[in-house]
Amino acid sequence: VIAAAAIPGLPEIRPGDDLAALLREHVGDGDVLVLAHKVVSKAEGRVVRIADIEPGPEARALAEAHDKDPRHVQVVLDESEEVVRAERGVLVCRTRHGFVCANAGVDASNSEDGTLVLRPDDPDASARRLRAALGATAGIVIADSFGRAWRHGQCDVAIGIAGLAPLDDWRGRHDAHGNDLRATVIAVADEAAAAADLARSKASREPAVVVRGLDRFVTQEDGPGARALVRPLSEDLFR
Amino acid sequence: VIAAAAIPGLPEIRPGDDLAALLREHVGDGDVLVLAHKVVSKAEGRVVRIADIEPGPEARALAEAHDKDPRHVQVVLDESEEVVRAERGVLVCRTRHGFVCANAGVDASNSEDGTLVLRPDDPDASARRLRAALGATAGIVIADSFGRAWRHGQCDVAIGIAGLAPLDDWRGRHDAHGNDLRATVIAVADEAAAAADLARSKASREPAVVVRGLDRFVTQEDGPGARALVRPLSEDLFR
Repeated sequence: VIAAAAIPGLPEIRPGDDLAALLREHVGDGDVLVLAHKVVSKAEGRVVRIADIEPGPEARALAEAHDKDPRHVQVVLDESEEVVRAERGVLVCRTRHGFVCANAGVDASNSEDGTLVLRPDDPDASARRLRAALGATAGIVIADSFGRAWRHGQCDVAIGIAGLAPLDDWRGRHDAHGNDLRATVIAVADEAAAAADLARSKASREPAVVVRGLDRFVTQEDGPGARALVRPLSEDLFR
Repeated sequence: VIAAAAIPGLPEIRPGDDLAALLREHVGDGDVLVLAHKVVSKAEGRVVRIADIEPGPEARALAEAHDKDPRHVQVVLDESEEVVRAERGVLVCRTRHGFVCANAGVDASNSEDGTLVLRPDDPDASARRLRAALGATAGIVIADSFGRAWRHGQCDVAIGIAGLAPLDDWRGRHDAHGNDLRATVIAVADEAAAAADLARSKASREPAVVVRGLDRFVTQEDGPGARALVRPLSEDLFR
């Protein structure tokens, strides 16, 4: 049985806030704590004021072509290694962490007026630091909402992980019929992020969700992190 | 709070089996029942014997180029509208339902030796029939595992839906700061499929999971089904 419950009553997070101190009492050994990336970013001060941005020529051209704020586009470009697609007002970017997503994860929702919240500089490192500070053998997932190339709507996925197996690899194991499960590698951390997303409201301040029942995927070591979920460029069939 | 629990003790499903009769006692009003598509396919007889397949020239050529069984490839082609990518042994196909996925969802795992399990002919219709037969105001999700273009591992998503809102559309609503939540459409049914996948083991016979706590997305009407999750070809940036 899997159970996901939002942690109630968290205050608005500001730069320098001690997330671990706020969350510690809610997280025990074997739990998986899923955090919306924005609270981690805010605590780490990864927030920019739009008024402070000076857009360059590439940002101005893209903004003009896609009816966007050139300052917003400049921040997106700063977070991107590559713009994979720019079409119909959508900038699909590859971030420097290898994530392919709209606007390089730069978002104006759930932020104070006139600011943009970036992703944590190194989400796996953020997850590891938070885990150490919590002092529990818990899995930490930092989640963000991703669109999908061929499906409507967004699902939360893991962009930072510590202490949770990102993937459950069944290749080489067998199903109930004795068949080889060749192609089955389950993205456990992404499914945990999705389950957690169902347990909170986007409108309320419920950025933290505890998922129970995933003990078998929680590890003593911090593990490879969300980096293990990134398909390398050399395997990208849709560049 | 979201809770997902596998239904224990289901027998191996065979063509003609009455799924609703097996599941009825486990599902109540407001529950979401998530079924691995294979049990639905098996009950509907959507199983082919590999020995009965006569591959055509296109299947033979693709099989030769990608080191696959030409009979398996023929079944994949029969289920596909279009092969979107054929590279490194992977056939990414668009099925006639519009789903873009590896091998058009044709899979040899968890099937009897020498057989391939296809998807239900019309997964939304299968979900609606099952819902009617269950006689509860429950949401039904028929799930399958999809790989992702830019991420390793697979996540379960919804390929058939009845009685559950596929999408939770927050566009036009506001976040806790009063900001417009322009781009936030949550793929609720896909996240429910993902949560359910965490609650069962791929090796054991636990194809059915009941998810509780999603009452707010369960509808009186059957609703638009998983078709609403398919991004139309005209919006496909990655064809």
